[in-house]
Amino acid sequence: MPTAYCRLPTSNNCMMNRVHAIAPATVANVCCGFDILGFAVDAPGDEVIVTRIEKAGVELIKITGDGGRLPMEANRNTASVAIQSYLAAICRNDVGVTVELHKKLSLGSGMGSSAASAVAALVAINHLMGEPFTRIELLPHAMEAERIACGAAHADNVAPSLLGGFVLIRDYHPLDVVKVPTTLALYATLVHPQLEVKTEDSRKILRSTLSLRDTITQCGNVAGLMVGLSTADAALIGRSLKDVIAEPVRSVFIPGFEEVREQAKNAGALGSGISGSGPTLFALSTSYEIAQHVGESIQEVFRRHLLASEVFISKINQDGARVINYEL
Amino acid sequence: MPTAYCRLPTSNNCMMNRVHAIAPATVANVCCGFDILGFAVDAPGDEVIVTRIEKAGVELIKITGDGGRLPMEANRNTASVAIQSYLAAICRNDVGVTVELHKKLSLGSGMGSSAASAVAALVAINHLMGEPFTRIELLPHAMEAERIACGAAHADNVAPSLLGGFVLIRDYHPLDVVKVPTTLALYATLVHPQLEVKTEDSRKILRSTLSLRDTITQCGNVAGLMVGLSTADAALIGRSLKDVIAEPVRSVFIPGFEEVREQAKNAGALGSGISGSGPTLFALSTSYEIAQHVGESIQEVFRRHLLASEVFISKINQDGARVINYEL
Repeated sequence: MPTAYCRLPTSNNCMMNRVHAIAPATVANVCCGFDILGFAVDAPGDEVIVTRIEKAGVELIKITGDGGRLPMEANRNTASVAIQSYLAAICRNDVGVTVELHKKLSLGSGMGSSAASAVAALVAINHLMGEPFTRIELLPHAMEAERIACGAAHADNVAPSLLGGFVLIRDYHPLDVVKVPTTLALYATLVHPQLEVKTEDSRKILRSTLSLRDTITQCGNVAGLMVGLSTADAALIGRSLKDVIAEPVRSVFIPGFEEVREQAKNAGALGSGISGSGPTLFALSTSYEIAQHVGESIQEVFRRHLLASEVFISKINQDGARVINYEL
Repeated sequence: MPTAYCRLPTSNNCMMNRVHAIAPATVANVCCGFDILGFAVDAPGDEVIVTRIEKAGVELIKITGDGGRLPMEANRNTASVAIQSYLAAICRNDVGVTVELHKKLSLGSGMGSSAASAVAALVAINHLMGEPFTRIELLPHAMEAERIACGAAHADNVAPSLLGGFVLIRDYHPLDVVKVPTTLALYATLVHPQLEVKTEDSRKILRSTLSLRDTITQCGNVAGLMVGLSTADAALIGRSLKDVIAEPVRSVFIPGFEEVREQAKNAGALGSGISGSGPTLFALSTSYEIAQHVGESIQEVFRRHLLASEVFISKINQDGARVINYEL
């Protein structure tokens, strides 16, 4: 991992002036994978445009879609912080860029909003610099941005947003990130009720100890989910989508949570749960049509609880963030 | 699962008089899979001979290899208890059999000794009765025998002994048993030092609560092991073979434990740990030669600690227990 040494761009063949990249929303935890698992969806995604300028340094010039809530200081925004960390790692603090951030993910939604901004920024700057880093080498810089955003350099949103698919963070010391293969076509339903939960607050209410029994249950389920994905066993995936760590406490923030789980199942979902630290809920299904039906059912539950909500239906994104266009 | 209803043999075509079966030793826990994972080895295995007699009931007539330590009462021995449970389930309490048990696994070794006896007995009686039950349907009866042997109806030895390979017990309520596929040829080294640890004692010293951090670590490792097996990634398997639940406390029973782990790694093992509740240690390797070398290295450590030990080298058994021969 490029943390302690510098890496220079290997080629100057394709020095770009402007790169526009998009990074997808992600679902962290995925019920049984608390703090160690996440997956990426096709849409929505945050967009970042990085443009080369004469003056050295990273300048944040525009943010849209955040309702004016994100800081414009370059060293407080995840997109620009990620770029600063990256440029330092390749010893190119002489480079100057402007950053435009177009937020499509709601802040504090639990869909990996801060992660998507950081990842889009990194994929853009890396392309601008001639791709000196591989995808996995960008990860520490995205994690550094997460530290700014929520106080912990967690990887369960940034890793799937970068790499696509289901991604396991087996360990942090040293970092061990594993893409979990599956031949199953899975569809995600994301339903974002009009509530806001801060990751920090949402972590505070977690218990710091667990019973041995709960630990064994969580281990059994995450192991089952891994085998279910690897062997394309949809029923096993469904049986494994349970969480005894975060859900029992975090679900108190979400009106109608139990009903949502039940209705999602009735509508044909393999399973459902809280996306990241919430309040967005996710469900996994085996077809687009089922995923759509599940979304309607969940939205109906929220409506009964007088909560407006937004629904996103999407295939699991297998490739992660991507460059949309660039100018030489 | 055949617990509350009766199932009659579907055919009388091949009513046998005598069946001789063997069931393999197993490694439960496999480091990160505490209470939810086990695998079977090719050898050693316990053997059971079931012979039909006129008089109804299950009669235990002979036990060899146990040094006279196992009870001869039919309702206290795992082999005969399993058969009693099975005959009740198929409503054939009118059937009479004698049972001979030839122990090849040391008692209290941590190699699934009680499980192998129960499984061999079940595979023998099921064959004798014309195979009315599938392998997985035999499982509850083997678990019933485990309840007699160690006070808990655990499945992490009986399931791999019955089914072969790596077997995940995702849940007990209801029972959800999953064979974990791998295309990797793995070899096990089992080293049994001349110590005895009772499963019951070994459970008593476990902590009843765990930190959230330890729980996440264990989940990450068991998830990594599942993906490593499924994708034939030997290095990932090696990185995942860690246990933060049982090993930190149980290893105090095993002189030289840390050294063993280190020497096994130096000798080329992917990883090593305590087999079940010990004191047998296991290691996994990618060739027979490495597994042999690992065995010698571990034995050498024990020798320095003035402990005699027995070594078994074996391929992972993919098929589980089997019938050796039968008489019509």
